[in-house]
Amino acid sequence: MSDTHVSPRESSPAPAPVTPRFRGVIPPVVTPFRPSGAIDHGALAALVEHLIGAGVDGVFALGSSGEAAYLSDTHREAVLTTVVGTVGGRVPVLAGCLEATAPRVSDQARIAARVGADALVATAPFYAMNDEAEIADHFRRIRSAVELPLFAYDIPLRVRVKLGAEMLVGLGREGVLTGVKDSSGDEAGFRMLVLANREAGSPLSVFTGQEVVCDAALMVGADGLVPGLANVDAEGYVRLWRAAGQQDWQAARSEQERLADLMRIARVAGHRSVDARGIGAFKAAMAHLGLLPSATMADPVQQLTEDEAAGVRAIVDRSRRPDVTP
Amino acid sequence: MSDTHVSPRESSPAPAPVTPRFRGVIPPVVTPFRPSGAIDHGALAALVEHLIGAGVDGVFALGSSGEAAYLSDTHREAVLTTVVGTVGGRVPVLAGCLEATAPRVSDQARIAARVGADALVATAPFYAMNDEAEIADHFRRIRSAVELPLFAYDIPLRVRVKLGAEMLVGLGREGVLTGVKDSSGDEAGFRMLVLANREAGSPLSVFTGQEVVCDAALMVGADGLVPGLANVDAEGYVRLWRAAGQQDWQAARSEQERLADLMRIARVAGHRSVDARGIGAFKAAMAHLGLLPSATMADPVQQLTEDEAAGVRAIVDRSRRPDVTP
Amino acid sequence: MSDTHVSPRESSPAPAPVTPRFRGVIPPVVTPFRPSGAIDHGALAALVEHLIGAGVDGVFALGSSGEAAYLSDTHREAVLTTVVGTVGGRVPVLAGCLEATAPRVSDQARIAARVGADALVATAPFYAMNDEAEIADHFRRIRSAVELPLFAYDIPLRVRVKLGAEMLVGLGREGVLTGVKDSSGDEAGFRMLVLANREAGSPLSVFTGQEVVCDAALMVGADGLVPGLANVDAEGYVRLWRAAGQQDWQAARSEQERLADLMRIARVAGHRSVDARGIGAFKAAMAHLGLLPSATMADPVQQLTEDEAAGVRAIVDRSRRPDVTP
Amino acid sequence: MSDTHVSPRESSPAPAPVTPRFRGVIPPVVTPFRPSGAIDHGALAALVEHLIGAGVDGVFALGSSGEAAYLSDTHREAVLTTVVGTVGGRVPVLAGCLEATAPRVSDQARIAARVGADALVATAPFYAMNDEAEIADHFRRIRSAVELPLFAYDIPLRVRVKLGAEMLVGLGREGVLTGVKDSSGDEAGFRMLVLANREAGSPLSVFTGQEVVCDAALMVGADGLVPGLANVDAEGYVRLWRAAGQQDWQAARSEQERLADLMRIARVAGHRSVDARGIGAFKAAMAHLGLLPSATMADPVQQLTEDEAAGVRAIVDRSRRPDVTP
Repeated sequence: MSDTHVSPRESSPAPAPVTPRFRGVIPPVVTPFRPSGAIDHGALAALVEHLIGAGVDGVFALGSSGEAAYLSDTHREAVLTTVVGTVGGRVPVLAGCLEATAPRVSDQARIAARVGADALVATAPFYAMNDEAEIADHFRRIRSAVELPLFAYDIPLRVRVKLGAEMLVGLGREGVLTGVKDSSGDEAGFRMLVLANREAGSPLSVFTGQEVVCDAALMVGADGLVPGLANVDAEGYVRLWRAAGQQDWQAARSEQERLADLMRIARVAGHRSVDARGIGAFKAAMAHLGLLPSATMADPVQQLTEDEAAGVRAIVDRSRRPDVTP
Repeated sequence: MSDTHVSPRESSPAPAPVTPRFRGVIPPVVTPFRPSGAIDHGALAALVEHLIGAGVDGVFALGSSGEAAYLSDTHREAVLTTVVGTVGGRVPVLAGCLEATAPRVSDQARIAARVGADALVATAPFYAMNDEAEIADHFRRIRSAVELPLFAYDIPLRVRVKLGAEMLVGLGREGVLTGVKDSSGDEAGFRMLVLANREAGSPLSVFTGQEVVCDAALMVGADGLVPGLANVDAEGYVRLWRAAGQQDWQAARSEQERLADLMRIARVAGHRSVDARGIGAFKAAMAHLGLLPSATMADPVQQLTEDEAAGVRAIVDRSRRPDVTP
Repeated sequence: MSDTHVSPRESSPAPAPVTPRFRGVIPPVVTPFRPSGAIDHGALAALVEHLIGAGVDGVFALGSSGEAAYLSDTHREAVLTTVVGTVGGRVPVLAGCLEATAPRVSDQARIAARVGADALVATAPFYAMNDEAEIADHFRRIRSAVELPLFAYDIPLRVRVKLGAEMLVGLGREGVLTGVKDSSGDEAGFRMLVLANREAGSPLSVFTGQEVVCDAALMVGADGLVPGLANVDAEGYVRLWRAAGQQDWQAARSEQERLADLMRIARVAGHRSVDARGIGAFKAAMAHLGLLPSATMADPVQQLTEDEAAGVRAIVDRSRRPDVTP
Repeated sequence: MSDTHVSPRESSPAPAPVTPRFRGVIPPVVTPFRPSGAIDHGALAALVEHLIGAGVDGVFALGSSGEAAYLSDTHREAVLTTVVGTVGGRVPVLAGCLEATAPRVSDQARIAARVGADALVATAPFYAMNDEAEIADHFRRIRSAVELPLFAYDIPLRVRVKLGAEMLVGLGREGVLTGVKDSSGDEAGFRMLVLANREAGSPLSVFTGQEVVCDAALMVGADGLVPGLANVDAEGYVRLWRAAGQQDWQAARSEQERLADLMRIARVAGHRSVDARGIGAFKAAMAHLGLLPSATMADPVQQLTEDEAAGVRAIVDRSRRPDVTP
């Protein structure tokens, strides 16, 4: 991992920082498929290379946007292997371990560690129905199983439970969690998490998984951005991140507004399933931009129709006009 | 209504602006009760006077924070009469008309108009279960019943439905809606509403009802703030609003962080009902600050216990220390 | 069953039964509108007369099926006046008082008492957000406001909260509640309520508001049926009730299966709002059967399209064939 | 599989029924753990033997009650191996394949087939968010991966989606699904599923996963019962099933009422997580009855406290008194 991904605090001449600090733009990389349904590893490598070229600070493989839920263990390992190999240590690789409970997450985590991931990302238990004390133990057990930094992935839409700020910060202080990816859509809760984390000495790197309020999240104190839309427009999010780093909120806002307009692609196929209309729109846009050879989705999700894809392309083209004022 | 409540855009020398623009800090005023359960009109008048003294740009009577759902028609009218009389035209008075369907909202709206409110606030239908086309007609019917500016109150936690940005902006362009109070907690949706409104020529005044991300909402483009916590610390929200108006985001953020810390009062009684722990905490804090003679809630909601109130007071005292660094 | 549990009709000239027991088939009467939107009181009287002729044991006016949420206070009173006047004491009239909180329900209840209703029906608070202790107080306060038997209406789909069996039975023992209309769709919870009520000495009359598992509910121990579909086919539910009373479960099941097939009318307009597709289907079927002059719904709900109504009619015609085997 | 598990309808002298019909009482077997957390295979074998001795018609391993979500692949295979080995073909063994998407379910299904399961049980996708067409394809893909009868497991509480009756019956007619385990708690929907299935020629075996309305479900037309409580009182559910088979609804109801009273054990630890209070109560009761050496739960779920377990034991003892009148 290069110095550029290490926070100022940790980058002091202190000997051997055990846990580098994760920050910046870390796209949740989509998984390219061939029209046959096979994973397109060449396209995946090219995409990762493109993202690094755009200036991202890390990549998150096997997340929701990566359609990891639809991949067998074998395919998950293959995807991660391609990503880690392509990245080659230039930026950290976070690996999603999206399984229902700690023993199953831990099995995935061991594979991720072996393949060479730099950090793990796990949600609260799903299918299982646990209370907060049990959820905290879930993260403790995962952390004790594999010697890698662990991020909690807060995504109540998919797992039915919202992670509490006090529990997360407490697990940060314990050394169980290194960070949080907050995809809850609860920006007031995000604010309270950022403040609680700061009061506790900032044990956590706090990322937002939102696409359209990243400028606000950074003003509030976010340490990083993990927006699915960064697959489509990584340069935009990198500009947004850098503007915020310079406290240039006018520029950050302007960039965010352009990206928020672009995010309307996710509403074109409004009557389709959540996965089809969101990830499907990202892939249709990426195909239009030459970032993917095919917009094929993981079976059984169907890619957008030609009409829907045309709607996506129109929004993409509009957002790239230099004079756009969304 | 004085010029101070009119936005710069409308305050040009144009003759007779038909619809003044609502903006700024507009607290949703709590309703004081005596320990006996009777409405304390003297305390209500004193509170309104205090808020105006603190520099607010309007007051919102008979909202959720005003416990309007718990008031009979007679008591609602009495509350509004006191508020309108106390305000005396110094700032606009928005009147909540929290009823399940358009005919019932309209009956409340006629009373509000007669009493002298400057604008009406209505939610989507509740108890009734309607689709978006029916909800749009609901607002059209209310607007046609009473000749006052109408705000849509987006509060899915209570009414089970989220209002879509396209519908809201469309109703703005039609002249049905003058504004929106967004208490949905969906800040990404708020961003999209602000952008859609701007693209349409800004027919709507867009307010946030959140307490802890007001700085972000203003950076995003909010026209006003309607936070329940402004009952407790109106001066803070006024400072926040003014800092944002000067694009001093550092100051806005600092003030917001102090207020976010103060908002922790709403979590002290975490196992109580939503209404008891939220409004109950506001009232306990106000009683501590001398802004209310009693923290009594509308029956059957019980005020906080002495232990809970002590927890609230400790947070209030902490937030008022000049050296506070939340 | 002792005389004290016999409805007014069955009640011999015994002197002054303090609390008559409510039981049997008690349709939640729809409110007929003219195409202009005005309430059609003649059609309402004719409908009530038809229901009594079909053998129902009571009528429930101003419920959800009666579109009471869409009616102003004036119109609610007018509807109830017509129903009470038409019934003329032949069966008990239950009056819905669908308001958000106790003071508002009580105001409606006083009107219902004055007009001559025999019992009141109230939900948990809505819009307001209360815990179980507050909800129990809500019912206590209503009961103390008006001297009429009070039924709790358990309808979480509309009010967001499920009423617990222990609370309900406790309120029955206190004399606060006379019965429960369970429209929760939670049949396991209904079973537990029936058993808890029996253990407590049966203080409550327990009704189900479901349409398609009435045979099962009666086998389980329900005291009555309040199905919206009884507006369309009261005779069927009366036959079902009587078959169950004779422990003829084969006949009860057969009748219920025919009615369950008929209930498919409520799915014809599947993409419409909940109120449009359900009550709209009942009204379309009733118009087809000559039970209503018009299928007009309360504004802003639109009645079914001609195609949708044709779908409803086909199901109705199928269910009335003597040889139907659904 | 012996003839006793084949329904009369299919048991005609037709040569070689390809798909035997599943019916009767099929407990979802709990997974015993030692206090150390290791699976107790001896206790599992003894439990399965006890259930067969009690007269059950099949066993369902690796379901929600079996805490399968908490087991690694290795442990899942070991549990299934023990169950299949103990059963020895005396009754059919259904194997849960509780994974998020079709490729992952299929991997589990292949293991189950190899180990010797007689049928597979899979839910709708979870974590993934699909529409109905995608969900139907999910089941098609699983069915085509492994040559075993497939049951759909309808459990919206855990997977956020309710399976529609039309889709299920359609998949039955296609030969994709052999049956449905309905744990949705939606008894009206269950009725409609039973009727739709019958109209289609009964392609599906329809089971209920409810504990307290099994008598009603059987009157309605259920083909089988899969109640978690059957781990505690298999004899009771077998008596209930047999009474219903003889149309002795009085006896069925009486037995069900005793079992419904027993089910109150699941409410003793009301403030614990869903998994702790439900499965935890089953295990505490089984330990009390000598059916399990330890009530240990899958980590991180804690077993009930001694006080909670005492509450469970009191209910168990009450339900076994010969004179119990719940």
